[in-house]
Amino acid sequence: MLESRVKEYYTPLATTEGALVASISRGCKATTESGGITVYVENIGITRGPVFKLKNLSEAMRSEIWIEKNFKNLAKLAESTSSHLKLLKADYKVVGRNLFVRFYFNTGDAMGMNMATIATEVMVKLIEQKTKAKCVSLSGNFCVDKKPSWLNFILGRGKKVWAECLLPKKVVTNVLKVTPEEIIEVVEKKCHLGSMISGSLGYNSHFANIAAAIFAATGQDLAHVVEASLGITSAEVLENGDLYFSIYLPSLIVGTVGGGTHLPAQQEALKIMKVGSVLEYAMVVGAAILAGELSLIASLAEGSLAKAHQRLGRKGQVDKMRKISKRILSS
Amino acid sequence: MLESRVKEYYTPLATTEGALVASISRGCKATTESGGITVYVENIGITRGPVFKLKNLSEAMRSEIWIEKNFKNLAKLAESTSSHLKLLKADYKVVGRNLFVRFYFNTGDAMGMNMATIATEVMVKLIEQKTKAKCVSLSGNFCVDKKPSWLNFILGRGKKVWAECLLPKKVVTNVLKVTPEEIIEVVEKKCHLGSMISGSLGYNSHFANIAAAIFAATGQDLAHVVEASLGITSAEVLENGDLYFSIYLPSLIVGTVGGGTHLPAQQEALKIMKVGSVLEYAMVVGAAILAGELSLIASLAEGSLAKAHQRLGRKGQVDKMRKISKRILSS
Amino acid sequence: MLESRVKEYYTPLATTEGALVASISRGCKATTESGGITVYVENIGITRGPVFKLKNLSEAMRSEIWIEKNFKNLAKLAESTSSHLKLLKADYKVVGRNLFVRFYFNTGDAMGMNMATIATEVMVKLIEQKTKAKCVSLSGNFCVDKKPSWLNFILGRGKKVWAECLLPKKVVTNVLKVTPEEIIEVVEKKCHLGSMISGSLGYNSHFANIAAAIFAATGQDLAHVVEASLGITSAEVLENGDLYFSIYLPSLIVGTVGGGTHLPAQQEALKIMKVGSVLEYAMVVGAAILAGELSLIASLAEGSLAKAHQRLGRKGQVDKMRKISKRILSS
Amino acid sequence: MLESRVKEYYTPLATTEGALVASISRGCKATTESGGITVYVENIGITRGPVFKLKNLSEAMRSEIWIEKNFKNLAKLAESTSSHLKLLKADYKVVGRNLFVRFYFNTGDAMGMNMATIATEVMVKLIEQKTKAKCVSLSGNFCVDKKPSWLNFILGRGKKVWAECLLPKKVVTNVLKVTPEEIIEVVEKKCHLGSMISGSLGYNSHFANIAAAIFAATGQDLAHVVEASLGITSAEVLENGDLYFSIYLPSLIVGTVGGGTHLPAQQEALKIMKVGSVLEYAMVVGAAILAGELSLIASLAEGSLAKAHQRLGRKGQVDKMRKISKRILSS
Repeated sequence: MLESRVKEYYTPLATTEGALVASISRGCKATTESGGITVYVENIGITRGPVFKLKNLSEAMRSEIWIEKNFKNLAKLAESTSSHLKLLKADYKVVGRNLFVRFYFNTGDAMGMNMATIATEVMVKLIEQKTKAKCVSLSGNFCVDKKPSWLNFILGRGKKVWAECLLPKKVVTNVLKVTPEEIIEVVEKKCHLGSMISGSLGYNSHFANIAAAIFAATGQDLAHVVEASLGITSAEVLENGDLYFSIYLPSLIVGTVGGGTHLPAQQEALKIMKVGSVLEYAMVVGAAILAGELSLIASLAEGSLAKAHQRLGRKGQVDKMRKISKRILSS
Repeated sequence: MLESRVKEYYTPLATTEGALVASISRGCKATTESGGITVYVENIGITRGPVFKLKNLSEAMRSEIWIEKNFKNLAKLAESTSSHLKLLKADYKVVGRNLFVRFYFNTGDAMGMNMATIATEVMVKLIEQKTKAKCVSLSGNFCVDKKPSWLNFILGRGKKVWAECLLPKKVVTNVLKVTPEEIIEVVEKKCHLGSMISGSLGYNSHFANIAAAIFAATGQDLAHVVEASLGITSAEVLENGDLYFSIYLPSLIVGTVGGGTHLPAQQEALKIMKVGSVLEYAMVVGAAILAGELSLIASLAEGSLAKAHQRLGRKGQVDKMRKISKRILSS
Repeated sequence: MLESRVKEYYTPLATTEGALVASISRGCKATTESGGITVYVENIGITRGPVFKLKNLSEAMRSEIWIEKNFKNLAKLAESTSSHLKLLKADYKVVGRNLFVRFYFNTGDAMGMNMATIATEVMVKLIEQKTKAKCVSLSGNFCVDKKPSWLNFILGRGKKVWAECLLPKKVVTNVLKVTPEEIIEVVEKKCHLGSMISGSLGYNSHFANIAAAIFAATGQDLAHVVEASLGITSAEVLENGDLYFSIYLPSLIVGTVGGGTHLPAQQEALKIMKVGSVLEYAMVVGAAILAGELSLIASLAEGSLAKAHQRLGRKGQVDKMRKISKRILSS
Repeated sequence: MLESRVKEYYTPLATTEGALVASISRGCKATTESGGITVYVENIGITRGPVFKLKNLSEAMRSEIWIEKNFKNLAKLAESTSSHLKLLKADYKVVGRNLFVRFYFNTGDAMGMNMATIATEVMVKLIEQKTKAKCVSLSGNFCVDKKPSWLNFILGRGKKVWAECLLPKKVVTNVLKVTPEEIIEVVEKKCHLGSMISGSLGYNSHFANIAAAIFAATGQDLAHVVEASLGITSAEVLENGDLYFSIYLPSLIVGTVGGGTHLPAQQEALKIMKVGSVLEYAMVVGAAILAGELSLIASLAEGSLAKAHQRLGRKGQVDKMRKISKRILSS
């Protein structure tokens, strides 16, 4: 797990929603005046989850045992497909006479889905040779890629990110124009109760907005906004009246090399961020999401959401703000 | 509900994944040779769901009753904020001493989230004046916007889209290089069983990929890829051996005016599609998603996924805007 | 919707867990000293959801339209099977070439699942005659019976029950041995945050325990404990320091005639309750659940759970049918 | 993991639904004529999941690390509370400044929830002494007990059970009066598609019914029917036309000593089963559930559900059937 150093970052955002940039910016102001955001990141690894069919439960369980016993050899094989890839572990699920395996990979600074697919394919071929398993599909949705799922919420996938900020009551009142208690009420009644009655996996206000803007700016796979929408915003008022504000992202699927990060504008946007690794990149995303959450929740608490959207409509605004460099997505 | 006319469409795709364009293209070939895709769309409406607090259950239920009784006046008020907006209906949920209301709006060809927010705000003010309700948050996550949720899966939000294609066995074998039975096996073991064991709301293979590519090309809000990842792919082998293939999208949040659709490149991409309304636009998205699903599932059944990604990697493919022709046929 | 009258009730509990009876009893003491529990109940109706297959989407949608247009005739037919049954409404879902219909019935004081099944069967036969629909299964899990589901959580099934109690700070401290703030902390961190991270539909502490004990005592179908486990416990500390405590049960499946209520001991237990209707019965269940929730949460806040279980273990407690007095008060 | 031996069992059922007993009985006949049911069981362990609060993320993560490092000592302490209990492992989740820990215990033949609570309490006290963690609640719903949850579905809790049967086409036709293809259609359209559109965690037809009947007869905690309702029924037609039928239960919470198993009638019912351990007991439950699923699904495929309920109504039937000994629950 990586803990953040004291550092300032520029966050490129590609969006057509003016209010979003203003909102994140205001959140950055409030958190900076509060001493900054603390972020933690854990690399869970990218996953690929093939499904095999067998004759019966017994054969399915024997194949699982074979994979467990030959895990080191499978890892060696997987890792022969790329010097950037390490096989970390596997989860198993037998249902009917099907065996699902979820392979976890460390793919360095790359998001790694393609690398993982290629590595999985060679392992699958060996498993088919050595056991009675026949692969039905290289991806059996036990990955789970680009679909919201409790599996990724509970076990994590890609990077898990936690961010927190302790805001003095005065900063909340001055910058965000509401009290810590009003923030709490929106967190509990909107992000928690509201999401419970809606059967949502997003116990937050708008993680996806902020992720989409950074993803578009920096060449991430836009379909991975799906996983970035999962997670929890939580907050508490401390005994001295200050505000503890926190976000948890169980499954952030990102990379700083490969994929769309090669494109010129996206490459430039990544350079502006000055991050040394994908873990540092994930931390900046986490911090931006916290800032954006805090600010939107304060707007909702203050009752100014509709106004902000009217004032900072999508048309025409090309604001440049402190610490936020905004780039409109060039198609 | 709108049924498609016999018509061909061009679908602009903005993606950095070469295999995706090739895959949708192949799906279009197979479905065109099969007589085209039939699509249905239903306009559920965009929703905004404020949360109010009251003294107790009794007051919360009385406020609900007041809103129900004064619905026509509220609609008149809401509709005074925009000539493009109609208030359709409302759902209610009382939990504790909180009242959540989910307002549904027809916003014409616009996606309409901002319009809906402004209209909700004026209604909320009237509700606060006339009842004892105090609005905690203009959005109480009973909307639910940009977060995966069972509420949107079950009740729908934005547009609901169904698409189907009946593919002769010969077309499946010739174009997709697999049998209908092999398609079915992947649908059942990956899209169904695999998603069940993963607690996913995406019983499909990659709706989000295709939606993201069209959304980026045509100026949709990229965070709405989240809702587009929900839905079901299903398939059956008919008695004569042909393949029935179908997709269901409960919550497609799109517009053809407003938001990012104003930007020059996105405006141009929309013009290429030659759609006369947002409903027609939604149908083309549905058809493209069916084509992309069919092709990826065939690749998985054939065992050629990894190969395709190696051949058509992200690097080097120039055409971020490759045009894809696709036929939609009425039944 | 039915609001409770001022009345006291006895609640029979059949359980082998001594701590459960003591816990509910303590909750009753605290709420009685606070002026009683207010309960609301709404009859959603029992549901049965057959699934039909058709040739394609078009036929599925036409069958849906036929049912909508002939709803009154279908109701007449359904109601000819029992004088105790009314058809209330239907929901529809087309996926692939399948049509799911969810029929809602008022079945008086009976739980009504069998009545609903028989009524659905005659309607299904007419639908098969008059449209191209062929019934695949009289129950298509769109009911959803005896399985946890977001459908029942969101739309309700059987009876929806709300209960609340406003407890003076002094009563909380004296009877429950904790402060209102400590209660809140357990509600938020266990019932809300804990259930979020667990992907649970039970945002409560032990609804199922209390429901199971009353169900066993009064002859309910024990498999309906599943639906009774769904729901939300919420609580707030008021400005004056008092505790607002509330529970919400979206799907309570119960009856006071028919089924196991005919058995001698169960019949006697029902008589002890002196409820005039199934709605009143549901309200008593809701009040007992509130009392049990409040007490367990207080135990957890106080740190006395393990102790209570050691002291009041399963062995030796004689009273499987201990009477619990409880007051329900109108607001 | 334990594989079943060739053996016959009597299964006591306490239910007021006559059709249920007849249905399980018919399923037993079909599977017995097919050579029996193969069952696998895995002991995941009972879990208890306390929640701790800390000052911030850093402290929460340090507490987690402390628990990981001192796991052997914690185990020793936990195991000092009962000679029947072993601490197996722990899962962790940090959200905001809260640390949730899920302890897994082997509790021998007991269901073990109380044992686990007592063991957790002593560990919690040590954790509070040695780290800065303060326990908010001994159960933080990260257990998750008696509430449906994806956590238990995905990771398992108590016992995981798999059961399968390979039924010759002739047996299906003769005993169940339908074809294997008709069985498949109900499984796919009801248990799979129907549960998908309902947001259910029960991809089956009526696991809960069968579990409730056995639980009531043998003294299990009736609220654990909730967990028994989770799981998947799957089926396939083999190339030779035979039927492969299978069920998967991720979380069966049962015991053969302690709790309600001490009561005289329940003790007697357990003796009838002649099971040597709780694992063997769980296997019999799994086999009975498979039999009951198979038979109900066949009834639905045949269209005879309503008829069966009319013929074998709840009133008066006291059938004794081959291999099924039925006991009415004595209150």
